[in-house]
Amino acid sequence: MGEFDLIRRFFQRPAADGAEAGVDVGIGDDCAVLVPTPGARWLVSSDMLVEGRHFLSTVDPARLGHKALAVNLSDLAACGATPRGFTLALALPRADEAWLAGFSRGLLALADASGCPLIGGDTTQGPLNLCVTVFGEAPAGQALLRRGARVGDEIWVSGKLGDARLALEVFRGTVALDGLGLETVRAAMECPAPRLALGQALRGIATAAIDLSDGLLGDLGHILAASGVGARLDVDALPRSAVLAAQSPALQRECLLAGGDDYELVFTAPPGAVLPDVGVRLTRIGVIEAQPGLRVVDGRGAAVEHGLRSFDHFSA
Amino acid sequence: MGEFDLIRRFFQRPAADGAEAGVDVGIGDDCAVLVPTPGARWLVSSDMLVEGRHFLSTVDPARLGHKALAVNLSDLAACGATPRGFTLALALPRADEAWLAGFSRGLLALADASGCPLIGGDTTQGPLNLCVTVFGEAPAGQALLRRGARVGDEIWVSGKLGDARLALEVFRGTVALDGLGLETVRAAMECPAPRLALGQALRGIATAAIDLSDGLLGDLGHILAASGVGARLDVDALPRSAVLAAQSPALQRECLLAGGDDYELVFTAPPGAVLPDVGVRLTRIGVIEAQPGLRVVDGRGAAVEHGLRSFDHFSA
Repeated sequence: MGEFDLIRRFFQRPAADGAEAGVDVGIGDDCAVLVPTPGARWLVSSDMLVEGRHFLSTVDPARLGHKALAVNLSDLAACGATPRGFTLALALPRADEAWLAGFSRGLLALADASGCPLIGGDTTQGPLNLCVTVFGEAPAGQALLRRGARVGDEIWVSGKLGDARLALEVFRGTVALDGLGLETVRAAMECPAPRLALGQALRGIATAAIDLSDGLLGDLGHILAASGVGARLDVDALPRSAVLAAQSPALQRECLLAGGDDYELVFTAPPGAVLPDVGVRLTRIGVIEAQPGLRVVDGRGAAVEHGLRSFDHFSA
Repeated sequence: MGEFDLIRRFFQRPAADGAEAGVDVGIGDDCAVLVPTPGARWLVSSDMLVEGRHFLSTVDPARLGHKALAVNLSDLAACGATPRGFTLALALPRADEAWLAGFSRGLLALADASGCPLIGGDTTQGPLNLCVTVFGEAPAGQALLRRGARVGDEIWVSGKLGDARLALEVFRGTVALDGLGLETVRAAMECPAPRLALGQALRGIATAAIDLSDGLLGDLGHILAASGVGARLDVDALPRSAVLAAQSPALQRECLLAGGDDYELVFTAPPGAVLPDVGVRLTRIGVIEAQPGLRVVDGRGAAVEHGLRSFDHFSA
């Protein structure tokens, strides 16, 4: 199987070229050609996934295909964008047909569900590496950014936090789980749901937003730094699954505050803002303050010493 | 040096955010936000470069930075697009400051020269891998595609072919070159010049176009397949450097027909078309015919047996 056969068999739909609304040219030319919506801004994000760092070599390829796109769609969601398409650059050690069939099935299922067609990319031989770049649109001036949080705003988070990190601890052997408990946290790690509907519904409501990829402390820290504010965060208010709630308090805090791989949205909104109901649970977890820094407290308002920090690819 | 320090030190310009025309938000948020030109189409291309396949581990990092962007800009050039920006996803074995300084210098010098700012991306630890995604614009209906070649059109190529492949043969040890000869072919391999001005000037003139990355036979073959036509190609007319012209006829043909890594444009245009003068040499190398297939002939019109094919990442 050659490079172009591989693309045709696993990634190119029979009528992909021109079949999607707004796609003049899809896979198969030097560039894809898209039709921007008049008056909209164009949003772009790119994430690279490396075996052994972002996923385990044993992961189900369909789940990996889902996740490679999901983590990118999550960036569009954090900005309140509507997806328009994505490119996939793929380095593979070899053309493994069973792996490719599963990977492309998971990838394209999420693409279909999100209205985000695969429009082009690249395929090469090399150590397994997945690079997805997504494109989306938002009305001018309505993209959600990190820089808009204001003193007095409430801090909200979608869904539940920490299960993906708990799954990682299971695979590392530091925590024992099986049955439904294992399946719950494993699905959180391998099949995150990008919060696209929520992000779009928060346009004009949220003052700042980010998606949780490196852990709550660091990611919320980006909002605080960009906005020039501080915050108080109630660790006891952080939403968690029953599986995580059954773990030790120290492990819960580590998973909730520094877990990473959550792909939930953290956003700020003025007190009293009417938040959208898109079927995703929203939890108030803190408040923006003028004093710089992030103060972690418990439910009674007492300071919590945690010593945690977010994930960084190049720090020891 | 952490991940975010690395981005700030080597890739983020002090005033990058908002400083470039048409960039509302650059590096540092979940997405970059760009302002499309009213009425224009949006063009996208993505290429991944892997150590040992696309470049040698000994390459000057500044030249590698140049090439990582150049091969992507070449796809925009082939479509006649004007660059608007690019993302870089980078997997690095370690944060090597000297390497990063050189790489980012070469990358950003070409970005500046091409009016194509770095607007975002990703940085992770892993086997060295560079994934660039470029964005450009062209007026609606004017992007150059592979599918428009018509019987009777002449086939043209820019610049000179085959030097990059000759350089590869030197590094493989099958050809001996030194001094100016080596520097000439090495520069062709490591510092290709994307033909952006030519591509834009060919809007409304060329009927089909592609950039040469995998070798002339295969890349011209894509135009023929997409356009449903055949062609006659004069191998003696193919433009070559004095260094390549001094090699054996068999090696010349291999480098010219199947070399790859040329990043010149091949395009078709009706006989008598007035071709643009943008300071790049253009050579007529063949003609589009109704009979399917690609017939390679010499300067006297006699068939040339070559047994060559283009590069494919997954064929033996």
